[in-house]
Amino acid sequence: MKTRVHSDELKQETYKGLEERGITIDAMAEIVYTLQAPYAPELTMETCRDSVHAVLRKREVQHAVLVAVELDKLAEAKALSPVLQRIVETDEGLFGVDETIALGAVNINGSIAVTTFGFLDKAKIGIIKELDTKREDGKVNTFMDDIVCAICANASGRIAHRMRDEEEQKESMVAELDKIRENFKEHIHPYEPLVANPLYEASSCNLSELSLTEEKA
Amino acid sequence: MKTRVHSDELKQETYKGLEERGITIDAMAEIVYTLQAPYAPELTMETCRDSVHAVLRKREVQHAVLVAVELDKLAEAKALSPVLQRIVETDEGLFGVDETIALGAVNINGSIAVTTFGFLDKAKIGIIKELDTKREDGKVNTFMDDIVCAICANASGRIAHRMRDEEEQKESMVAELDKIRENFKEHIHPYEPLVANPLYEASSCNLSELSLTEEKA
Amino acid sequence: MKTRVHSDELKQETYKGLEERGITIDAMAEIVYTLQAPYAPELTMETCRDSVHAVLRKREVQHAVLVAVELDKLAEAKALSPVLQRIVETDEGLFGVDETIALGAVNINGSIAVTTFGFLDKAKIGIIKELDTKREDGKVNTFMDDIVCAICANASGRIAHRMRDEEEQKESMVAELDKIRENFKEHIHPYEPLVANPLYEASSCNLSELSLTEEKA
Amino acid sequence: MKTRVHSDELKQETYKGLEERGITIDAMAEIVYTLQAPYAPELTMETCRDSVHAVLRKREVQHAVLVAVELDKLAEAKALSPVLQRIVETDEGLFGVDETIALGAVNINGSIAVTTFGFLDKAKIGIIKELDTKREDGKVNTFMDDIVCAICANASGRIAHRMRDEEEQKESMVAELDKIRENFKEHIHPYEPLVANPLYEASSCNLSELSLTEEKA
Repeated sequence: MKTRVHSDELKQETYKGLEERGITIDAMAEIVYTLQAPYAPELTMETCRDSVHAVLRKREVQHAVLVAVELDKLAEAKALSPVLQRIVETDEGLFGVDETIALGAVNINGSIAVTTFGFLDKAKIGIIKELDTKREDGKVNTFMDDIVCAICANASGRIAHRMRDEEEQKESMVAELDKIRENFKEHIHPYEPLVANPLYEASSCNLSELSLTEEKA
Repeated sequence: MKTRVHSDELKQETYKGLEERGITIDAMAEIVYTLQAPYAPELTMETCRDSVHAVLRKREVQHAVLVAVELDKLAEAKALSPVLQRIVETDEGLFGVDETIALGAVNINGSIAVTTFGFLDKAKIGIIKELDTKREDGKVNTFMDDIVCAICANASGRIAHRMRDEEEQKESMVAELDKIRENFKEHIHPYEPLVANPLYEASSCNLSELSLTEEKA
Repeated sequence: MKTRVHSDELKQETYKGLEERGITIDAMAEIVYTLQAPYAPELTMETCRDSVHAVLRKREVQHAVLVAVELDKLAEAKALSPVLQRIVETDEGLFGVDETIALGAVNINGSIAVTTFGFLDKAKIGIIKELDTKREDGKVNTFMDDIVCAICANASGRIAHRMRDEEEQKESMVAELDKIRENFKEHIHPYEPLVANPLYEASSCNLSELSLTEEKA
Repeated sequence: MKTRVHSDELKQETYKGLEERGITIDAMAEIVYTLQAPYAPELTMETCRDSVHAVLRKREVQHAVLVAVELDKLAEAKALSPVLQRIVETDEGLFGVDETIALGAVNINGSIAVTTFGFLDKAKIGIIKELDTKREDGKVNTFMDDIVCAICANASGRIAHRMRDEEEQKESMVAELDKIRENFKEHIHPYEPLVANPLYEASSCNLSELSLTEEKA
């Protein structure tokens, strides 16, 4: 009897598949950065990379990557049934199963990720553009270009949600500090700078460590 | 250069694929009948069959059938990459790409078809049950059973919409006849039975011919 | 007892709702034209308008329009519960129910319409841009701008499918004519111009009348 | 200027809305238990309740709850526009915006949650059944019953994913222990019972504490 595929194996296969198809984490992180930088001036490539990795830990995304890699490879090897072969090879405009599989992986991040996916699928920037033009040398990326759009849309939506969470955490802490200062105002020297307040520093450190590293439950 | 796949060829390949996988129009029409008969006492198997055929004329459905047939056949031939092979072969419970592809084909009939799809996917009646149990003899129907759910859900939703259209047509005609009778009441003998009214009969004939045969634009 | 809403009434309410919100058929047809013109040099505004009307005949779209109009009007009248009022009024970035309702109306045209929807939702052209900026004068279009994207994406996808059908019809007729000419070549004068062939002209007329006016079943 | 809605406020409003509509966490946890117990003999109501709470922490779900509560309340107060009022009041069979809003909240847990949603929407068990029959006393639950299906489907899908994670953790630990035992077999007395192995006990304790309490990143 075949043993069940362990999640570690599934994850490994996902990364292997992307690598085989020439899709790096950095290439996807760059698209995420382009999408989110206008709304987040302090955004770093590091955060974008982390977000891509977090998306790639999701089972739905891993399964979608595996199926997409498989179908593109089979099409390159001319191993599909004749009719489907021609449809996939030519990236036939009205064929939508590629978008459908990608949408299944993008739905998990809500309707905002779906609209970002749609935008990327038309705007075709960075690696997505490259995948789309490689077609000439016998390469087939019919399924993979949509999956890359999905991964980037997910990672981008995830950052938008996180930024909001972080902003709110900051707001809460500032409000709490204001309350503390108010309660203890007779004990705190009026000219004491805010940054020297050990309470604030502790919270602040805590925040930067927490921020964007652990998933909202 | 490969020529584009003509819609006739696509349609033919769809029917061929279903046949190859042992899925008859009748087997699907029976599920549609089971789903809709409680709401439509006059429903015939003929209407259910017509509805299945109408669903199979949709490009989205045809494309989904082709991909599903392909992946199940490749899995039966042990021709997929090892990890995906094991996932598809065992119809791994958390694998959702099969449902995703089917959902892409069911979304075209609105959210009601989506809920019917979900119900069929769990309730597994008729041919869907058979596809699910055939697995033991080396058969793989991981993708196909979901597609069959999608086709039946679509055909069922389509009948629900049509029945409403038909009911409204009947209501409109009855209302119009009432108006005609009102306008001409001095010319019509008060005890003349409604069924003898040639206007009503003409409309009625017309209705039964129209009903469920042409698509709502 | 309340009587059921007749489809004529539903359709009328849909058009009334769009008019009330200042959204004309022409404004939407223009967006459809902008999207499809690059792929269809012979596309006319008339065809785009027809396609918008065809989309507005779909129950799913009509229902979505009604709910969107209602929620935007309630928000303008400050009649929603305080928390939801603030979310809708400010078109809160992470609120996705507006996109979700629109996606429900766009799914019926397949995954290609979904990606076009996502593109329009970001690119915001024409009337969509106007709806988005009107916000300043107390107007709320949080739900309506997404619905307009959905209608235009549907109408655009519908044209893409139709163009393909028409191209195939032309191809079929040309092939049939070639066969006829082949069979009757001894009876047809070799230099007789193709356009003078009455069979071809008849088919051609037929085609232009048929094209884009009736729904694919 | 109106201030942005803080996530704490959004969460509070979600719980308040459910309470107002008579929907308890326990009523939903019971449905989750019914769905998952056949696959998880050790499942407790506690775990089901935790899973419902985890689902209610998701923004997409919170937003969907708010809109659904609002529309049902407005319909009960006869405050919707006449046509929409009749559609919502009668829970019109072909109206699908209620399912659409719920689907938006269920998509975030993948296609498996979507099929569970479809099943619940038809099977109507527990509180979902109650919501559906309350209609007679002037109550409207057109939107809310679908949202409850969505919450339960999400919570159920979440448990399925967690169970798998936990099973894999157990497998990994058993494998590791086997390796340790193999490496140290000369030092371990052959008849020493496995349960007495302090390493195993430590891991085992650790596992039961971890299980189902923290989110997969």
